[in-house]
Amino acid sequence: MQLLKQKVLDEGIVLSNQVLKVDSFLNHQMDPVLMKEMGKEFTRLFDGQNITRVLTIESSGIAPGIMTALELGVPLIFARKQKSLTLRHDIFVEKVFSFTKQETNEITVAKKFIHSGDRVLIIDDFLANGEAAFGLARIVEQAGAEVIGIGIVIEKAFQPGGRLLKEAGYRVESLVRIASLDDGAVSFADPLE
Amino acid sequence: MQLLKQKVLDEGIVLSNQVLKVDSFLNHQMDPVLMKEMGKEFTRLFDGQNITRVLTIESSGIAPGIMTALELGVPLIFARKQKSLTLRHDIFVEKVFSFTKQETNEITVAKKFIHSGDRVLIIDDFLANGEAAFGLARIVEQAGAEVIGIGIVIEKAFQPGGRLLKEAGYRVESLVRIASLDDGAVSFADPLE
Repeated sequence: MQLLKQKVLDEGIVLSNQVLKVDSFLNHQMDPVLMKEMGKEFTRLFDGQNITRVLTIESSGIAPGIMTALELGVPLIFARKQKSLTLRHDIFVEKVFSFTKQETNEITVAKKFIHSGDRVLIIDDFLANGEAAFGLARIVEQAGAEVIGIGIVIEKAFQPGGRLLKEAGYRVESLVRIASLDDGAVSFADPLE
Repeated sequence: MQLLKQKVLDEGIVLSNQVLKVDSFLNHQMDPVLMKEMGKEFTRLFDGQNITRVLTIESSGIAPGIMTALELGVPLIFARKQKSLTLRHDIFVEKVFSFTKQETNEITVAKKFIHSGDRVLIIDDFLANGEAAFGLARIVEQAGAEVIGIGIVIEKAFQPGGRLLKEAGYRVESLVRIASLDDGAVSFADPLE
């Protein structure tokens, strides 16, 4: 997605060869026009798939998620993150390890919002090791529903998440794939679009 | 806002005379068309105010916030909530007490995203005691910017937040004001629109 690549080049800050800061348009300040365009692009990529629900995770997935849900004409559900919680019969729970924060969170979705027969598109802002996406996919499968695909805003393609998700059989579509952050610069995996 | 009142009546669950659960369309599952209409309504209410930024707080404020920012053609910033954090010179920090959770969180916004001269519209999903809205307003004022108004999706008008904010000089516009949740039923403060 050319508009997003340009934003990454113009405003992304390479903090290390692992960390790209995009807080001016994606995960602290948000550019609403860019979010809307992302929603259109995810809808185009998953056209004809009869998606019934979009599922994301708080907080940075919500804006691209709601724009995608608006374009698709389906509800958005966002999973909540919690340190730990008392077991409840009415929610799906999965454990997700964050490499960035070096901690395990529980992510939860109320059972009443995903059902057998649902065709679910998972949306998230970043893909690195794939922990969050796998956790969301397991929740969809706990519900007896189907993961139609995983839409990612920025994939760090030098980390294993994308490969692992594809090996597990999921369709992954990333709007931008970054091959490397070496030498303080962003290199895209697909430079020509 | 009639569409929202109808949603509250159809899908809101009165858990007690203090608590209204709206997780089917506002704060867990989200209705994207309703969010878009909210964005239009906030834009109509604050028309002509030359707003330069929308500010909200994670997580449930993000969807109405991004739709309002899209309509207004300005960026959205969402404040992050944290239990506590090491002091940093590059962020604004305010303490916010949650009556629901009976805990104090710190809310933070990077200083680079709000500046002197900004005209800020604060958006949040619920208004009860006003703690979050006051915290966001204090951040705007720390930045030397101006709070143009506070847009609330659902105000529990039987709790003091709305009155306190108005007494402090803020313009508050709530899409729906609830007068009471007594006897398991929702009574609106403005039944006729």
